[in-house]
Amino acid sequence: VPLKPCRNLVLYFHDILYNGKNAKNATSAIVGAPQWGNLTTLTVNNHFGDLAVFDDPITLDNNLHSRPVGRAQGFYLYDMKNTFSSWLGFTFVLNSTDYRGTITFGGADPILTKYREISVVGGTGDFLMARGIANVSTDAFEGDVYFRLRVNITLYECY
Amino acid sequence: VPLKPCRNLVLYFHDILYNGKNAKNATSAIVGAPQWGNLTTLTVNNHFGDLAVFDDPITLDNNLHSRPVGRAQGFYLYDMKNTFSSWLGFTFVLNSTDYRGTITFGGADPILTKYREISVVGGTGDFLMARGIANVSTDAFEGDVYFRLRVNITLYECY
Amino acid sequence: VPLKPCRNLVLYFHDILYNGKNAKNATSAIVGAPQWGNLTTLTVNNHFGDLAVFDDPITLDNNLHSRPVGRAQGFYLYDMKNTFSSWLGFTFVLNSTDYRGTITFGGADPILTKYREISVVGGTGDFLMARGIANVSTDAFEGDVYFRLRVNITLYECY
Repeated sequence: VPLKPCRNLVLYFHDILYNGKNAKNATSAIVGAPQWGNLTTLTVNNHFGDLAVFDDPITLDNNLHSRPVGRAQGFYLYDMKNTFSSWLGFTFVLNSTDYRGTITFGGADPILTKYREISVVGGTGDFLMARGIANVSTDAFEGDVYFRLRVNITLYECY
Repeated sequence: VPLKPCRNLVLYFHDILYNGKNAKNATSAIVGAPQWGNLTTLTVNNHFGDLAVFDDPITLDNNLHSRPVGRAQGFYLYDMKNTFSSWLGFTFVLNSTDYRGTITFGGADPILTKYREISVVGGTGDFLMARGIANVSTDAFEGDVYFRLRVNITLYECY
Repeated sequence: VPLKPCRNLVLYFHDILYNGKNAKNATSAIVGAPQWGNLTTLTVNNHFGDLAVFDDPITLDNNLHSRPVGRAQGFYLYDMKNTFSSWLGFTFVLNSTDYRGTITFGGADPILTKYREISVVGGTGDFLMARGIANVSTDAFEGDVYFRLRVNITLYECY
């Protein structure tokens, strides 16, 4: 049986990493690092081993200052020494007039490649029992402190 | 097709966090913390950034000293600065006459809200290929050292 | 409806843990540890609380030097004080003539027991929407620095 998409959403989330000076604005913080790293600067070797916890605003467009429709919450880690690559476990907690419920994601994100797909592994509320994939792209970044991800979600199980 | 629940379980698990003095009884330990935190005390700002690993006893009722039917194993992290909220990835490893197998969970837990649902993302043994949701509530807590979660699991895929 | 497997794969992955002296060869590093631990040596109490990030080569046979067909990327943590046990969240990123796509896993791995099954929670590419289980066994290890896992994957949902 060929799979047919039953729902599509495009959302953005915005990550501002704590760097020792931006405690007020930061939405994420490094909480684990390898022996050669530290908790205020992403480490050498493509940040291999850095682990960050985040609570990032989700918006419908690419503007950090648009009204958030929810929060992206969870963690990401950098896991390759010779290129940028990450692994993410997180949930979109959506709480707006359009969407109410959660979508949980897990998977590897090979940051510098063209196709970056992670798995949708579960959901609640409007997204009860959701499954599918999310195409992730870096919509913008500023040094090591800010990045914005565009997440194009395709669900193949909807109820 | 409307979803129909095929199985329901209610279980409790008990978490005793290492605080520097309770090494014998502790069932969990902080292993990651932000730059302003440490590994024996949950940090300020609603514990934002603290990451704990746990191996907690699971019981059928709310008594810590009841005979365990398995272990809840994995990690939780606190991910909001302005309220208590966590993200969990863990597995119920069940090994009793009633249940034999595992149930794996992932998702955001907005601790202070009324409805706290995380996703059941997989299972093995008696719970092979399980999927569904788990309603989580804090059944009790004592300061930062002990909490007990009631987990009401609804599976929508059973085999 | 009884479940029927639709696909089976056996793959190996190889983990070389950073110990302070093997930066070049290491494929993983401890990035979180409990208060009594450190980032270059696995800790006492069966490594309880140690959290490692990894990017390990995947091979078709048990030879570390065989041509990799992909990378196993993610994290593992040790979560029991009185025996060896771990919890893993990771993705097989496969990129060979045989396999192209990802398989994402999550679950508890009771290292010293006979049956060690974790869940396949999602997939992309050739493994779009994969679900199933993976039987894991330690094929070899050398002290605390090297281990090789044999992963026998059974999928019950294939598209």
